[in-house]
Amino acid sequence: MSTPAAATEPANLMEAVVSLAKRRGFVFPSSEIYGGLNGFFDYGPLGVELKKNIRDCWWNDMVRRRDDVVGIETSIIMHPKVWEASGHVAGFSDPLVDCKVSKNRYRADQLFWSPIVIDGTIHGYVSALENEKTTEELQAAAELFKRKKAIVGTLAPVQPKDFTEATADEVAKIPSPATGNPDLTPPRAFNMMFQTNVGAMTDASSVAYLRPETAQGMFVDFKNVVDTGRVKLPFGIAQTGKSFRNEITPRNFIFRSREFEQMEMEFFIHEDDDWAKWHRYWIDWCTGWLKSIGLPASHLSEYDHLKEKLAFYSKGTTDIMFKFPFGVQELWGIAARGNYDLGQHEKASGVPQAIFDETSKKKFVPHVIEPAVGLDRIFLATLCAGYAEEAVTDEKGNTEMRTVLRFSPRIAPVKVAILPLLKNKEVLTDRAKTLYKKLQRRYAVFYDEGGAIGRRYRRQDEIGTPWCVTIDFDTIEKPGDTFTLRERDSMAQRRVTEAELFALLEEQVY
Amino acid sequence: MSTPAAATEPANLMEAVVSLAKRRGFVFPSSEIYGGLNGFFDYGPLGVELKKNIRDCWWNDMVRRRDDVVGIETSIIMHPKVWEASGHVAGFSDPLVDCKVSKNRYRADQLFWSPIVIDGTIHGYVSALENEKTTEELQAAAELFKRKKAIVGTLAPVQPKDFTEATADEVAKIPSPATGNPDLTPPRAFNMMFQTNVGAMTDASSVAYLRPETAQGMFVDFKNVVDTGRVKLPFGIAQTGKSFRNEITPRNFIFRSREFEQMEMEFFIHEDDDWAKWHRYWIDWCTGWLKSIGLPASHLSEYDHLKEKLAFYSKGTTDIMFKFPFGVQELWGIAARGNYDLGQHEKASGVPQAIFDETSKKKFVPHVIEPAVGLDRIFLATLCAGYAEEAVTDEKGNTEMRTVLRFSPRIAPVKVAILPLLKNKEVLTDRAKTLYKKLQRRYAVFYDEGGAIGRRYRRQDEIGTPWCVTIDFDTIEKPGDTFTLRERDSMAQRRVTEAELFALLEEQVY
Repeated sequence: MSTPAAATEPANLMEAVVSLAKRRGFVFPSSEIYGGLNGFFDYGPLGVELKKNIRDCWWNDMVRRRDDVVGIETSIIMHPKVWEASGHVAGFSDPLVDCKVSKNRYRADQLFWSPIVIDGTIHGYVSALENEKTTEELQAAAELFKRKKAIVGTLAPVQPKDFTEATADEVAKIPSPATGNPDLTPPRAFNMMFQTNVGAMTDASSVAYLRPETAQGMFVDFKNVVDTGRVKLPFGIAQTGKSFRNEITPRNFIFRSREFEQMEMEFFIHEDDDWAKWHRYWIDWCTGWLKSIGLPASHLSEYDHLKEKLAFYSKGTTDIMFKFPFGVQELWGIAARGNYDLGQHEKASGVPQAIFDETSKKKFVPHVIEPAVGLDRIFLATLCAGYAEEAVTDEKGNTEMRTVLRFSPRIAPVKVAILPLLKNKEVLTDRAKTLYKKLQRRYAVFYDEGGAIGRRYRRQDEIGTPWCVTIDFDTIEKPGDTFTLRERDSMAQRRVTEAELFALLEEQVY
Repeated sequence: MSTPAAATEPANLMEAVVSLAKRRGFVFPSSEIYGGLNGFFDYGPLGVELKKNIRDCWWNDMVRRRDDVVGIETSIIMHPKVWEASGHVAGFSDPLVDCKVSKNRYRADQLFWSPIVIDGTIHGYVSALENEKTTEELQAAAELFKRKKAIVGTLAPVQPKDFTEATADEVAKIPSPATGNPDLTPPRAFNMMFQTNVGAMTDASSVAYLRPETAQGMFVDFKNVVDTGRVKLPFGIAQTGKSFRNEITPRNFIFRSREFEQMEMEFFIHEDDDWAKWHRYWIDWCTGWLKSIGLPASHLSEYDHLKEKLAFYSKGTTDIMFKFPFGVQELWGIAARGNYDLGQHEKASGVPQAIFDETSKKKFVPHVIEPAVGLDRIFLATLCAGYAEEAVTDEKGNTEMRTVLRFSPRIAPVKVAILPLLKNKEVLTDRAKTLYKKLQRRYAVFYDEGGAIGRRYRRQDEIGTPWCVTIDFDTIEKPGDTFTLRERDSMAQRRVTEAELFALLEEQVY
């Protein structure tokens, strides 16, 4: 039996993950044969299963297994007034900077600059795009400037600011990262909603937007759900679905793309209820859920948004952060939004959003706690946290490397691989196929009879299959009809019956 | 025990279905508080479950339970060259007619007209929009014309043609349905793809489209799937997802909307394989699948597209038709498309799409059979076929009406309702809640303790719940821990144990 040594994280984990995702059919660039389309991705045969499993786990736990949350599915294109009322038409924008010469475009808050200060005097400016080494790059550029211009004196350390903090005078002097000359425009607000036209007219009257979030669907349909369901406070409305944001600079693979899938829930509470208690409840629930699908506690942390940076109506927002290879980033935002959203739609539509609460005999517009997460981000987190390269020593003492994705059985694209020990022994393949067909009614399983058993194990390790079942001669010749069950992470092997295998799956895959 | 009499179909089945869909939270108009948005719909708490169940049944049967089909999920916004290569930019259009005065817009092929012929002479023209009584309306309009103008002679029966068949001379004379005067423009091609711009530029270089079909995703990713999966001919690639068509006249509820969900599969075969055999195979498979989710054979039929109306590359297309209340309409199209699509993308992208077939040792671009169906249409079909109003006679001889949705257990939003006989007997509610929690791990179940048991049954009938389980005093007092299982359609009742209930669900819900 092989045993895994300590896992090592590859030097460039992100590169390794992107490469595996492509090689094994998890994620492809969209429209790749046409050179791709920046910010858009496709999910391949294994990726679509992983994504569906994460989505289904969320749906089952958030909606079907709870008595206080119902699901909906609203359209991607909604009435344009929805986005006026929500504030997205006026305010959903990023600051954009143009380079007049290269025609490159930058997000102002990702474009950093500093004056070059030598002996207390400003001699010029340097700029660099945000990355992990922005300050070092600016410093090096300042030093190069000093050397080239042969200026004598002491160069002060650079003071990086982003381009939104530049005065008009500074804008006119800061060099474009593309040309090295001061060719940049002042920042302007760029609305991130994709725009289209509905109907046969193409004018202002027909403008519509691709939703930039699914949340507004829950607010706009709030009264319909209240009137047709049998909900009472506190209760939630949830949905999963595509959202679209015309990001100026999509980046970090599927972390920040232009088309992505959200899983959002609006939890409505009594106006007198303790919002902080529910806020905490949902932070804990979401954290627990992330662990239940296999994300390690070591990679999770909380970040409370600063009070002074919150919108005026917001009572508090906490992000569950995840340690990605490119930094600790927001995974799941849990926002206490008061009753701002329903109130806005009440004002804009003229349709009252207040409900009568039977228990307190009061009529009011409910308050809301909103846990909002990106499905593609969870997908990426499971790949990053699950990826490992291990030195494995086999029974002959030979050491080789294996790549393994340590997916939780809940989300693994393939739950069990069924492997007859030999391809050309019908007695083995027949038994294997019978088991395969029986499992296939309930579970995503894979039948593989090609190649050495060790190589077949490796192929399954690399796609995160938690268990391999080998049908060998003991299955046929010894009493009990048992198989070899091989566990992915420990690589331990034991014999199980069909009933034990089904019981294991019933317990672990839900 | 109550017994159902023969079911009656309501006089206006479509109205009844739309009304129930709204009342019980299956389907809402999108953005209803803002007056709605023509051609867009939302799915409510029960609708989203029904839709998800249909989608999951299709996915499980089409992808997970087959060894020759893999799934993918491609982006809604793809590279614009995809739609040039596919022919959609040039040809995906409907003929559009404007009324210059009213500004109304019509699809030319839905706008019918006829000359008014009296004693062999044309005296004028009449027009009417397509509906079930177009000919009668045209005839009545012609008679009215004759009477008003006091023309003597014999009026010939009208000869309805659609507006695409009008000559320039006739276009100038045919009255607009809105004004009664000849205010119509000649038909022009209106491209049905929604257009947007990707990136910070809004010009021709940044134009992109919302996909009008999911199928192109399978063709564009064909090589990626072949290179990363372990597929060999014949094999299929499947996906479900939203598509968008800017219909000039959306109609028939969710049958023809502007945003809808497709379930498509491309089945690739050897160039020498018998396409007609595979075409027949998939027609039969799709028909069988529709029956497996509860659509009655009596409502299904086949329509073979006429050879002379097929695209030049098409070998044959057969539609599985469904008897909707508004007519027999296309549900599922099964098209034999040769290797046109892959060939087009090979030409446009320059990336070879041919594969080497190990068995025949030949290299070629595979041919394809495409079964393509709309999820919203199946959803509507299950509502229309399942809806019934029945006179029910109870044990006291009283007759009342019940509304029932005869959903297959596979797709019913709620599988079992758990009903303690009395709300205020803890011994009953405790047992009911234990059963409820146990079932909830695997199935969508509903707990209801409010109101008379008969009323609770009716509520479940109306949303299509196949089984109700009542926890009564026999459960508690008699040996065996049995419940009353009440079957929706027959309304028959029998006693079952928990194990029998789970076995029933395991068999029927898959």
